[in-house]
Amino acid sequence: MKSILVVGSVALDTIETPSGSVQDAPGGSAIYFSAAASFFAGVNLVGVAGDDFPRERLEFLQERGVDLAGLEVVPGGRSFRYHGRYHVDPNHRESLLTELNVFQDFNPILPQPYRNTELLFLANIDPDLQLQVLDQTEAPELVILDTMNFWIERKLARLRQVIARTDVLIVNDSEVQQLSGQPNVVLGARMLREAGPRVVIVKKGEHGALMLTESGFFVVPAYPLEQVCDPTGAGDTFAGGFTGWLAGAERIEEQSLRRALVYASTLASFSVEDFSVQRLERLTLPEIEQRVAQFRQMTSYD
Amino acid sequence: MKSILVVGSVALDTIETPSGSVQDAPGGSAIYFSAAASFFAGVNLVGVAGDDFPRERLEFLQERGVDLAGLEVVPGGRSFRYHGRYHVDPNHRESLLTELNVFQDFNPILPQPYRNTELLFLANIDPDLQLQVLDQTEAPELVILDTMNFWIERKLARLRQVIARTDVLIVNDSEVQQLSGQPNVVLGARMLREAGPRVVIVKKGEHGALMLTESGFFVVPAYPLEQVCDPTGAGDTFAGGFTGWLAGAERIEEQSLRRALVYASTLASFSVEDFSVQRLERLTLPEIEQRVAQFRQMTSYD
Repeated sequence: MKSILVVGSVALDTIETPSGSVQDAPGGSAIYFSAAASFFAGVNLVGVAGDDFPRERLEFLQERGVDLAGLEVVPGGRSFRYHGRYHVDPNHRESLLTELNVFQDFNPILPQPYRNTELLFLANIDPDLQLQVLDQTEAPELVILDTMNFWIERKLARLRQVIARTDVLIVNDSEVQQLSGQPNVVLGARMLREAGPRVVIVKKGEHGALMLTESGFFVVPAYPLEQVCDPTGAGDTFAGGFTGWLAGAERIEEQSLRRALVYASTLASFSVEDFSVQRLERLTLPEIEQRVAQFRQMTSYD
Repeated sequence: MKSILVVGSVALDTIETPSGSVQDAPGGSAIYFSAAASFFAGVNLVGVAGDDFPRERLEFLQERGVDLAGLEVVPGGRSFRYHGRYHVDPNHRESLLTELNVFQDFNPILPQPYRNTELLFLANIDPDLQLQVLDQTEAPELVILDTMNFWIERKLARLRQVIARTDVLIVNDSEVQQLSGQPNVVLGARMLREAGPRVVIVKKGEHGALMLTESGFFVVPAYPLEQVCDPTGAGDTFAGGFTGWLAGAERIEEQSLRRALVYASTLASFSVEDFSVQRLERLTLPEIEQRVAQFRQMTSYD
């Protein structure tokens, strides 16, 4: 079993959707990632929260082997808060409020035992901080990177430096277009792969995901859900399922990467069935395996 | 080998895309469908054209076993003409001109030998005409139906009558939403299937297609193309690949339907590589089989 380190946000989310709403619920990329990855491997988490963060809400993560020693709690500080609203189309989110609070001054310092991590997931944070994290690690076997349009628009040069040190780039289709300057996502993914990462994964939400490796494309669908409750965190859950499954694989090669992508898509499909990490909290490994089997059934033919 | 009958439009298309343009080129649903299906089976075509239609442009279809005895040519009539323009995003087409001409008075009369067809593809035409065609056939083994938003908005009651007599409904994602009243395509497909067709296929363009049968969902990706030249006719080519492959299958059951969907997606991916039916005209069976093999490679995992 390989070690996993995630560096990302820890937030309190208020989310409204046509199915209902949730207020100040645990969220943030590091939380969603850990909730998914911890089904398969231990996870070390580095992030920052205020002392208003309800630590008891993270107990289920600790029970699954998530080490929160790297979660800095700022005394008197207020946690990162986000307020978003989804309408009927779960692909479009209206952002009502983003309060960075203690996350504004996030300065990730890796505890000594985390520095030789084998797998590193750099969640969507400032590329300068991602570089800072990379500089503190001792040559991880696999660096997995997420980012977003905000950094592509504001810190492209620094982001390119991070990408050059990345093994697996996980982005969505519009980020591929933005990063590559290519409207065609297939061509864009090829161009991004030439820039460094040996694996480029393109998330397409309800349309599944593409993975480009030296063997070419692998395509995985999204699980066909009749109702999407809350899409928040689906991308980080996807990355968590991917990384977690890989940590337990014997070797990291084409076939294990493909299986990992199936687990990624499966975990993401559960995540959106409820608000916050509620579905991931009550999820079980047999449920995951059952849906993975359904995935195979859904995509195979004689 | 089962017999196939297609009833649909025969047109002269003028198409502009960022890759170039083509003027008065063979198009229409019946032409694209036949060009694809004829790789696998004979096709009987019923449609109407003016005597301005360049019949020599259809010789390649006849060489592949497409019977044009049912293509009525109206003396002195002008063929259905369409002029469309695609911009950078191949998912959006601007319609500049639609001249129905002889298609306005299309009154499909099936030649006697066509009436006992085993497979029937009702391309996207007025539901009243689709019913008229159904009434002229002798219980086909499989009725495959296409339609569009125009008829859903204007002739929903008649369209529902056609759907009730359909075995395989092929629609795109927005048509599923419109027909079912459900924003969620998965739920919408289930509702449509309850309305009659034992197979519902949802086309999602570059995102592939879903098929819902009594066995549940089957998902097939689109072939990842680096460049899309002209998306016109992709849906009819898809239906042609599907129906053609099924005509040669030993039995029509879950596994052959799945294989047919892979061929459908494959044929559509070739069609969009050039204008009009030019790619389908020069396409060969070995090229098809090679891409089908690539599809399998792209979707399979240990």
